[in-house]
Parts: sequence; C-alpha cells; structure tokens
Amino acid sequence: MDMLIFELERNSDKPLYEQLYVGIKNAIISKRIEVGTKLPSKRKLADFLNISQTTIEIAYAQLLAEGYIISVPRVGYFVETIDDLPYVENETNLEPVPLVIKQSFEIDFNPGTIDLDGFPFTTWRKYAKLLIDEHNKDLLLTGHPQGEYELRVEIAKYLYQSRGVVCSPEQIVIGSGTEQLLPMIIRLLNSNEFAIENPGYKTVNRIIKHTGRTVFPIQVDEEGIRISDLEQTTANVVYVTPSHQFPTGAVLSATRRSQLLNWAAQHSDRFIIEDDYDSEFRYLGKPIPSLQGLDNNDKVIYMSTFTKSLMPSLRVAYFVLPKSLLSTYHNTFTYYTSTVPRFDQHILANFMKDGHFAKHLNRMRKLYKKKHEHMTEVIERHYPTLSISGEYAGMNIVLSVPHDLSEQQLKEKASNHGIGVYPISNYMISPIEYNVPQFLLGFGGLNFDGIENAIHKLMSIWDVKRVN
Amino acid sequence: MDMLIFELERNSDKPLYEQLYVGIKNAIISKRIEVGTKLPSKRKLADFLNISQTTIEIAYAQLLAEGYIISVPRVGYFVETIDDLPYVENETNLEPVPLVIKQSFEIDFNPGTIDLDGFPFTTWRKYAKLLIDEHNKDLLLTGHPQGEYELRVEIAKYLYQSRGVVCSPEQIVIGSGTEQLLPMIIRLLNSNEFAIENPGYKTVNRIIKHTGRTVFPIQVDEEGIRISDLEQTTANVVYVTPSHQFPTGAVLSATRRSQLLNWAAQHSDRFIIEDDYDSEFRYLGKPIPSLQGLDNNDKVIYMSTFTKSLMPSLRVAYFVLPKSLLSTYHNTFTYYTSTVPRFDQHILANFMKDGHFAKHLNRMRKLYKKKHEHMTEVIERHYPTLSISGEYAGMNIVLSVPHDLSEQQLKEKASNHGIGVYPISNYMISPIEYNVPQFLLGFGGLNFDGIENAIHKLMSIWDVKRVN
Repeated sequence: MDMLIFELERNSDKPLYEQLYVGIKNAIISKRIEVGTKLPSKRKLADFLNISQTTIEIAYAQLLAEGYIISVPRVGYFVETIDDLPYVENETNLEPVPLVIKQSFEIDFNPGTIDLDGFPFTTWRKYAKLLIDEHNKDLLLTGHPQGEYELRVEIAKYLYQSRGVVCSPEQIVIGSGTEQLLPMIIRLLNSNEFAIENPGYKTVNRIIKHTGRTVFPIQVDEEGIRISDLEQTTANVVYVTPSHQFPTGAVLSATRRSQLLNWAAQHSDRFIIEDDYDSEFRYLGKPIPSLQGLDNNDKVIYMSTFTKSLMPSLRVAYFVLPKSLLSTYHNTFTYYTSTVPRFDQHILANFMKDGHFAKHLNRMRKLYKKKHEHMTEVIERHYPTLSISGEYAGMNIVLSVPHDLSEQQLKEKASNHGIGVYPISNYMISPIEYNVPQFLLGFGGLNFDGIENAIHKLMSIWDVKRVN
Repeated sequence: MDMLIFELERNSDKPLYEQLYVGIKNAIISKRIEVGTKLPSKRKLADFLNISQTTIEIAYAQLLAEGYIISVPRVGYFVETIDDLPYVENETNLEPVPLVIKQSFEIDFNPGTIDLDGFPFTTWRKYAKLLIDEHNKDLLLTGHPQGEYELRVEIAKYLYQSRGVVCSPEQIVIGSGTEQLLPMIIRLLNSNEFAIENPGYKTVNRIIKHTGRTVFPIQVDEEGIRISDLEQTTANVVYVTPSHQFPTGAVLSATRRSQLLNWAAQHSDRFIIEDDYDSEFRYLGKPIPSLQGLDNNDKVIYMSTFTKSLMPSLRVAYFVLPKSLLSTYHNTFTYYTSTVPRFDQHILANFMKDGHFAKHLNRMRKLYKKKHEHMTEVIERHYPTLSISGEYAGMNIVLSVPHDLSEQQLKEKASNHGIGVYPISNYMISPIEYNVPQFLLGFGGLNFDGIENAIHKLMSIWDVKRVN
C-alpha cells in the first residue's frame, strides 16, 4: 500500500488517533482502500506521520474492534470485506412526535388524586439527606430481591397493628405497583381462571387477561362481591377489595367474608387476592379488619400500596404471601431484582420506624374526613333528589343522579365546562343494567374551601334543582 | 332484647365506641345474641349506658359495615345471619421463615458490581434536597407514563452525543430495569420467535420464554453473533449486545452489523433489540457507535440502563422505540404508569443537565481503565499459560485457564477458599462445546490495591504456575 495520505491536524479538538481512525474508516467505506490491502505496520506509520506508535495502536484497535480490519498475528493488519454498509450519516431527525395529552380540568373530581398540602416534605427531605451519604455506599448495589429487610419489618409491624394482617417480613415482596406485582402473583398460582369484582379495577382485568388467563366478572352489591355468583364459575382465584370495594364503596359483609374464606378452603388451588388499597382512610369507627387476618388456611394473598397513604409517584406497593406459596415464590423468581430504588426504600423505612407514617395517616385521615363530610353535607342539604352510596371511607363518594340525560351525556356536559367527573360505567368490567346515572366524585385533590362551589357549579351545569 | 350487658371502662385506652362494638360483635359471634334479635335504639342504649348517642351510632355503623347487623329503615337494627365464621383470634405466628441467603465471598470477582468509592454523594444529595420540597408538591402525583419529559430530554441528548442514537424524547420509555421493560417490548412486536446470543443473558432468555415465545440461541464468536446462524432460524426478532457482547466481550464487526441490519430490513415484522448495557466503559479509542444510529429502516429498539454508569440500586433503565412502533405502544399501554419514582427521575435529570453525569462517566472510565490494565498486566506478567479475551471495555475480563480440573471444579475450589469466580458456562443459553475452562473476572467492585493479591491468591488456589 502506498497511498495512505491523511492530513492530521495537531491543534484540532479531535485527538490524533480519532482523526486517523476516521480517515482510514472513510477510506475503507468509500473503497479508496481495497479489501485485502495490508495496512502499514504501526512502527512504519508512526515514523511516516511523525506521531507516537500508541496513537496508531489505538486507531488500529478501534478499526479492529469495529471489524474494518483484521489482524493476522505476526503478519499485520488487513482491510476486511464489508457488505454495503448503510454508513451514510442519518439526518438528525429530531422533530417531535405528537405527545399524548391528558385532558386537564378546571375542577377535577378525579378519585385517584390525593391532597398535596399535607405531605411532610421537611421530614422526608431530612431522611433523604441522612441516607444519601458516603457511609451508605453499599446501598448503591443491588439489594434483596423482595425489597429491603428494614422496610419489610416496618410494613409487617404496621400491617399487624393497623390491619390485623399476620405476617413476617419474609412473606413480604415489595415492588413498583399493582401493574408490576399482580403478574408476579399470577405466576405463582396454579390457575387459568380468575374472578374479579364488577364494577372494579379495569387495569386488573387487563393485567389478568394479558397473562392469557380467563376473567369472570362477578357482580357487586351493597354487601360486596356476590359469593353465590362466584361459586357458579370455575374460577379458582378471586381478586377482591373487601375493606372498601372499588368503586362502589361497599364493605364485604361478615357473612360474605366467611363464605369467601370457606370457598377458598375447598380446593388447594384456590386463593383470594385481597387488595387493601385505601383501608387507611375510614372516617367512622375502626378500620375493617383484613380478610388475611381472619384466614386460618393460608388462602389470602394480601396486597396494598403507599399510593393513597403517601403519594402516587413514590411507586411502592407490596404483597404478603401465605407461607404455603413461599417456596414456589423462591423457585420462580430466582433471577428477580426488586424494582424499587434502595434509597427510597430506606427513606420510607425510617419514616415509618420513627412514627411519622402513623402521624401522617392520622393527619390525613382528619383532613379527608372533613372534606368527605363537607361534600356530603353540601349535597344532602341542597340537592335532595341525589343520593350518596358507599361507606364513610376513601377519597370519593358515589353519587346517583336521576336525570333525563344519560351518564355519558352528563359526563360530556361537565367536561365541556371544564369539570372532570367519573361515571361508574368507566369501571364496568362487563355491562350491568342500572337505571340512574352514577358518578364517582373524588375529593382528595380538591381544596376544602373549593368543594362547595365545585358541587354547585357542577349541579348548575347539570340543571339539578337546588334547594336552600 | 333484655340481656345486653357490657362493662364499659371509661378510663380505658380503648374508646367507648370500640368497647361497645367489640362487646356486641363477640356476643353475636358467640351466639349470646340470637340472629334476628332487634338491638336497642340508639337513644335508649345511650340513656341506659349513660354515654352519648354518637358513641352508639359509631359502634352500630361499624357493625353494619362489617355485616353483623342490618338496618331496617324506621324500624331499627337487627342481628344478621352469619355463617360459621372463623373469627377465632389467630395466634400471632411471627416466627421467621428462613431467609434465602446469598453466598458472600472474601474476594468477589462478580462482574455485576461497580466501584463504590467514585459515586458523587454530595452532588446527588444536593439535588435530592432541592427537589424534595413543598414547591414541587405536584411531583407527588402520577407522572407521564413514559417517564418524566425532563429526563427523557437529557437521555436523548446524551444518547445522540455519546452513542450516535438518533431519537426524540417522545420515543423514550423509562422503567425500572430490563426485567420490567423487556416484556413491554415483546408485547409490541408481532413475533413468536426470538433469537438471542449464546452465551448471553440468561435472564433475557427466561423473560422471553416466560412470555410464551420460542427462543433460538445463536452462537457468538470473536466478531459477535453469527448472522448466518440467525438466518437459518425462523426468528423475526433478535436480542443483541453489539457494542460489547455479554459475556464474551466481543464487538459486533462492521460486516455483521451491516448483515444484521439487512436481515432486519427484509421483513416488516423483523426487529433488532440492541442492549447497550455498558457501552460507556471502553478504554481504548472511541466508543463503538450504536446500531440504532446506523439503521435507516426503523428496525432497532435501543435499550440501556444506569446500572453500570451510576448504580444498580437506582433502578432506572429505558428503551428507545423506532417511530414505526409508537402508535402500537400508545394503543397497547394506555393504562400503564411509569414504575420509577418521580423525585428520582428529576434528581437524575438535573444531574445530567448540569454536566455531572458526563463528569462522573469520565472519572469512572479512568478508574475502571486503571483497574482493567492492572488486572491484565498482573495476569500477563505472571501467568503466561492463561489468556485474556474480549475487548478493552466493561467491568470484567474473560480468562481462559487451561487446567486438568474442569470449570466447575475450579469454581468450587475457589469458592471453598472464599473467592467468587463466574464460569462462562453460567451464561450458556444452550450447551456449546469448548475445551478450556473460562471465567469472567470482574474488577469493578475490587479495590485497585487488592487486585494483584486477589489474582495471586486465586492462582495459587488453582495451582497455576507463576513466573516472576
């Protein structure tokens, strides 16, 4: 080879090895150097270009790594055959793809939001500051696949004291949310047929269906899911929200609890998934005890989340496995890594350990109770044609609105005036006959002082007759 | 009813309503009060017990909610039929289930760990402090399902500058790791047959198989995955690590890159998943450009993670979708919520935006380069019978150890002496014939000053002849 000529700029920003590498690469791509050509030895080229051998070495190593040249030991470097490479520079086509924009409302009765003013930022920040520190450098590495032991201890204590859930930290698995945890649970169960509440969580329906399982929607009434309907199906697993049915707000009655546990006890493959998503917020009397705590047959997989009790964006949820499923879990998820950042897990564990979680819950419970009472009062005092169902709990009421317009028409009318309301039909897994339009009205995200006006505005848009 | 007698303790920790509720509940469960019995009216009971009507009201509401009694409007409360309830108190059976204990070594050549001394805790903590604040209270709510826009902007910039990846933030989806993101990608692709590298990531094999797809392991040689073998299969999707094959360390050659892109271009259902897991760490020459940047046909789904470049425990990974898959993505994942906490996403976005990520990478690259050179030097100087393969990159070398003992025997021998080594057979998706035992020796987690002794200790255990 006698024609390898490059202009190397010694004062360029680009290092010499890179100039050399690019020069040879382009020569190969444009076929100015033919396939099979032997490149000059490193020593010769270094002499010729008056640069160090190391520079040549790096450039050659790069070409070698990318496959432009091959090395024949004790002979030298040769240009490799290269299929027609699409090495034309891509245009930097960065024009944005249209974003999926979520509708935003002036007044939003979204049942999924929380009150933003009650969060103890100062305390949370204190723990973040303490934990993100050199002396915790081990927390940079992968942690326990089930989640940090310290956090599982706190969750077990909390569950035992507040929810009557009996478990050890070894039974707890921490993850980033229902969407991530439910598929794991499904894998542990030897069942192709699942029953869920109707109306209920559509996401749960989608997740189960996506795993290829069959879903039987079971109707819910004032006492919660109808066990007699469940018994008519071939489902072996049922997903329920017994403490506060979502979205109707019903509490599973004592009789049905007993029936449900008995149903599960009848077959070794039968299990109950108890989602206790917002049991912290109950405004009258004691919390409803968990099904898990009543179960003597290792039949309940309890799951819950910090979405309502702390914040949706923290992405910490967990499930509690019956002991009978622990070995299956260990065998199935040998390669699994916990999806929750370790620093966050420790911030939360410390926050709970020092009593801040209990305090926060008490504070928020009072706040939501006030909002709930206020919303209920405003409606009962001024709009006697409407009726409220569901328990004194959670972040929303369920409102029945007898009207000439349909549920969908009412929703659209509200929406056109900048008000977000959430029809019960949004939560129907399969259609259910009902006559009166029903809406979930969330109050968690509304300002206390704005609740009364928000209700009046909505009712005036809907032409609902106001008294007083 | 004339026999409802409770002893209410006015000075107890338990509120009166709870004492009343528990008393009536136990009376119902133990059948001391018969089914159908009418409870005394609230007013009467309040008079009788000399407590407020509100207390009675709360206790009755609780019993009602749990289904022990029913309310007949304008008549009163009646004890409900209850099937034999297993309401016997559970023993608080909290004895721990045995923990799955990970083996820990005195010297661990684990290729999956990182250097813990280089992490900029002060800077990271600064951003945590700034962000966890009242004025960011909106970050408590659920964020964009693809991840925070600010972070996607920074990732897009970084990828374009460092990896030649051409994308807009709208094409990026952020999640908690490969285990969580890969199943999402699989759902977007219209393919039941996947090819993966062999040896390769066993976790990827498991994830794909778990979705019910068929996996074809394709052998890897010095030039990376063998495209001719891929072409023999019916797979439409291939998962590759072209910049630095895991675990062999090979770089996909220019010829094979071109062949691979051409293979993908031949059918509309064909796609390449490019996992660029540790491309930041290359110690000789420039980084190998990404396949995604070479592709003109929208055929490459690029994925990477901050596991190696920042920390494994942060749980932030992402993929970049070709524009052709964006509408499928939006239609498939309508209900999806990002699994990464929003505060962490913003900490990372700010860290990147202010140039700290680039600085950190440069610092760590120097550090790992020193460790890599040192480990290589020690082996080459003292153990001429061994040979090192793979590129000057990543966090581990691949060492061939000609020996009378088998790979497994060598591993056990090291393990018995407290040294963790990682045989190449650990990464075999299906068996491959090879004669000489090979091990991945990671240096990321080893102290620089300990590397020489660690190697000598291992070789002395293995009876490998030392010179000098």
